[in-house]
Amino acid sequence: MSESFFRNINVGLIIRIIGFLLIVEGVFMLTALPFTYLYCGPNCLAIPISAAITIAFGAWGWLSNRKASKQVGKREGYIIVTFSWLFISLFGSLPFIISGEIPNFTDAFFETMSGFTTTGATILTDIESMPKDLLYWRSMTHWMGGMGVIVLSVAILPILGIGGMQLFMAEMSGITYDKLHPRITATAKRLWGIYVILTALLTGALYVGEMDFFDAINHAFSTMATGGFSTRNDSIAAFGPITHYTIILFMILAGTNFTLHYFALHGQFKKVFANQEFKAYLLVIIIVTLIIASGLVINKHFPIEQSIRDALFTVVSILTTTGFVSSDYLSWPGMLWMLVFALMFIGGSAGSTGGGMKIIRQLLLIKNSWMELRRAIHPNAVLPVKFNGKSVPQDIIYKVMAFFLMYILIFGMATILISSLGYDFETSIGASIASLGNIGPGIGMVGPVDNYAFLM
Amino acid sequence: MSESFFRNINVGLIIRIIGFLLIVEGVFMLTALPFTYLYCGPNCLAIPISAAITIAFGAWGWLSNRKASKQVGKREGYIIVTFSWLFISLFGSLPFIISGEIPNFTDAFFETMSGFTTTGATILTDIESMPKDLLYWRSMTHWMGGMGVIVLSVAILPILGIGGMQLFMAEMSGITYDKLHPRITATAKRLWGIYVILTALLTGALYVGEMDFFDAINHAFSTMATGGFSTRNDSIAAFGPITHYTIILFMILAGTNFTLHYFALHGQFKKVFANQEFKAYLLVIIIVTLIIASGLVINKHFPIEQSIRDALFTVVSILTTTGFVSSDYLSWPGMLWMLVFALMFIGGSAGSTGGGMKIIRQLLLIKNSWMELRRAIHPNAVLPVKFNGKSVPQDIIYKVMAFFLMYILIFGMATILISSLGYDFETSIGASIASLGNIGPGIGMVGPVDNYAFLM
Repeated sequence: MSESFFRNINVGLIIRIIGFLLIVEGVFMLTALPFTYLYCGPNCLAIPISAAITIAFGAWGWLSNRKASKQVGKREGYIIVTFSWLFISLFGSLPFIISGEIPNFTDAFFETMSGFTTTGATILTDIESMPKDLLYWRSMTHWMGGMGVIVLSVAILPILGIGGMQLFMAEMSGITYDKLHPRITATAKRLWGIYVILTALLTGALYVGEMDFFDAINHAFSTMATGGFSTRNDSIAAFGPITHYTIILFMILAGTNFTLHYFALHGQFKKVFANQEFKAYLLVIIIVTLIIASGLVINKHFPIEQSIRDALFTVVSILTTTGFVSSDYLSWPGMLWMLVFALMFIGGSAGSTGGGMKIIRQLLLIKNSWMELRRAIHPNAVLPVKFNGKSVPQDIIYKVMAFFLMYILIFGMATILISSLGYDFETSIGASIASLGNIGPGIGMVGPVDNYAFLM
Repeated sequence: MSESFFRNINVGLIIRIIGFLLIVEGVFMLTALPFTYLYCGPNCLAIPISAAITIAFGAWGWLSNRKASKQVGKREGYIIVTFSWLFISLFGSLPFIISGEIPNFTDAFFETMSGFTTTGATILTDIESMPKDLLYWRSMTHWMGGMGVIVLSVAILPILGIGGMQLFMAEMSGITYDKLHPRITATAKRLWGIYVILTALLTGALYVGEMDFFDAINHAFSTMATGGFSTRNDSIAAFGPITHYTIILFMILAGTNFTLHYFALHGQFKKVFANQEFKAYLLVIIIVTLIIASGLVINKHFPIEQSIRDALFTVVSILTTTGFVSSDYLSWPGMLWMLVFALMFIGGSAGSTGGGMKIIRQLLLIKNSWMELRRAIHPNAVLPVKFNGKSVPQDIIYKVMAFFLMYILIFGMATILISSLGYDFETSIGASIASLGNIGPGIGMVGPVDNYAFLM
């Protein structure tokens, strides 16, 4: 930007807030200690040393800027969001480096960034050989990142005036326009509470099912954050149908706007099912699942139950940008996996832990395209786009369009960049959209049964 | 649309105008007669019979609606544009069907539609075995389609209020805002004159070079229309460097806004080189050519001249959506042909015969994305997008965005549709964008050395 961007930046406050986030990170790191104690291997000290370094740095940043002004503008917001991801991932990679389990810094940083952004792309080739406390921390990066998205969205993004959140606020009037804005902290706590409750429920359900406590809590973290890291080399394919269905249900819940969970907990089911984004979300899942399941029955002669389960699991996993794998979709007929590929461009709901472009944006863009056609024929008619029964202001549509364009532009440039390293067309496109949408598995050489270890 | 769309449609006028277009088509068909006479094979009567049928139908439509009101609204405009392409392609396929050279109706209709839309995708596997008068008519469909785009753009599209033309009118103020609109016919004639002159010049240049008159006029038609049909099985690879450079120059001219040719003919070169779209067009050609040529020298150890020529020819051919082939770009290293693939999403200049999304749209979208970033940081500043030194109204940016979205949406749906026929990922994507952008060759099984014969 212009140089005026860097004028009068409240640097003290930025360092203070990032310092605070590092202290929180260090404390969460310490929750891995029970697994360090239970399964101590040769590198018992990796977690406590990393936590100590992280907390020490954080405390220094927090305490040395006690006198910083509390004024936070849009510019400070952008800088905090950008640099907090960077610093949290840097310190978060310490356990992998100090333990010597991922000695290469770039690999450790990639794995940690993939965790915090809930992408779930891994460079590990033998996950099950890793010490359990490190695997727990790996899943925890997902969980913090998933929660972080909501907390940041609710607590920081409204200050930045990001379109998606303004939308969220303008549309969810029951909880947002009159309640969310003035009591932002209360709302953040409420959403955080729902996140904890759903994670606990899923841990319990998986533990009652096929998993031990370690696998259960790790997969619960990964599912609720729509992350995708598993503690097993075969991902969810290592487990049976009951686990598949349990995780499908919670992936759907994790990809739903958390405000709707709040409504549901208060018995306001009418509000939940009147939400157009939620209806579109379910509709996409049902239609694509039916097409793929039919294709698997007809072309691959799979049993009907398995076809529906594989199709549903894959559709939900990719749409919510979780990236868990229950079957190798690249072994399906071309059109079926291309449908899966198309889902990578949609994403989860606004206000959920799901990534990607988000269903609400796609819905508004499609509604607006339809209105454009009508406007071309009736140039004098006033034809606003409606969402949940209300007119959407033109400048919000405009911001959503600009978002879509930048997304496609970055996708294109990333594809060319990856291909310049010598990778083929499908791998370049697959790695690009799978990373940009925080999905994890893509197509080509970064498909569902591959990993990102070979990428330099 | 709603039923009000079809209320009070001026059907008489629509039939009258389409009738007129069919008479014009029949007359152009008759210009193939010298080649029928010179190289008469077993099907001498195909051209005259087809021309007679076309003119007879056209005359009936024209004469039977003499009393139709002359009122033409937006709705009539849309219907005329849509149905004229359909009817012109239907009657245009008669010579291929009547001669028995392309007996299958679907194939003949595909070839003709590919001609009139200047796509240049062919279903012919042995082009050189076709009678010469039919090959001439095949190239003529390109030439009519290329001219048609300009005439339709200038004469009909402003009535429809299409964003691209409003842009064209708002920006090219020297010839448009004060001259183009009131004297639309004069301008259309002027542009038509430039088209004829350039085609004649190219025919002469090719004839002086390596080609006989038949090859020269056919390739001149195809080049100036940015079509891509050749009279040779090996396309332009059948000829030498001098032909390559000649065609490169005229492809660049054909992909340039014809208003700029008008300025150049009147010595107003300052206006030409001040045009931001023209500068962006040349910049893209130069940069991508340099990258690809370097890659060919380094990776394939091609001689420098050949590398530059192959790179420049391919970049210009794809960017202008011509689709001529001088070398098999799919045999290049992955990143190089993926750059060629990326060009398929750009297209030629507004007001040229080139297809695709058009450079002016891409330029406005990139400028607007940059402004969006600045607007996010300076929410109170007024930051309009500027083009050629003038502010572009927000509603034009909006229409360009809507166009981009629909384009991407149709591209995605077409890809899924083609893949559902059982084709692989690259073929589906390649055939989709190559058809949508009127390019011709794509990637995968519809690459530069393939044809569309196998597609059902």
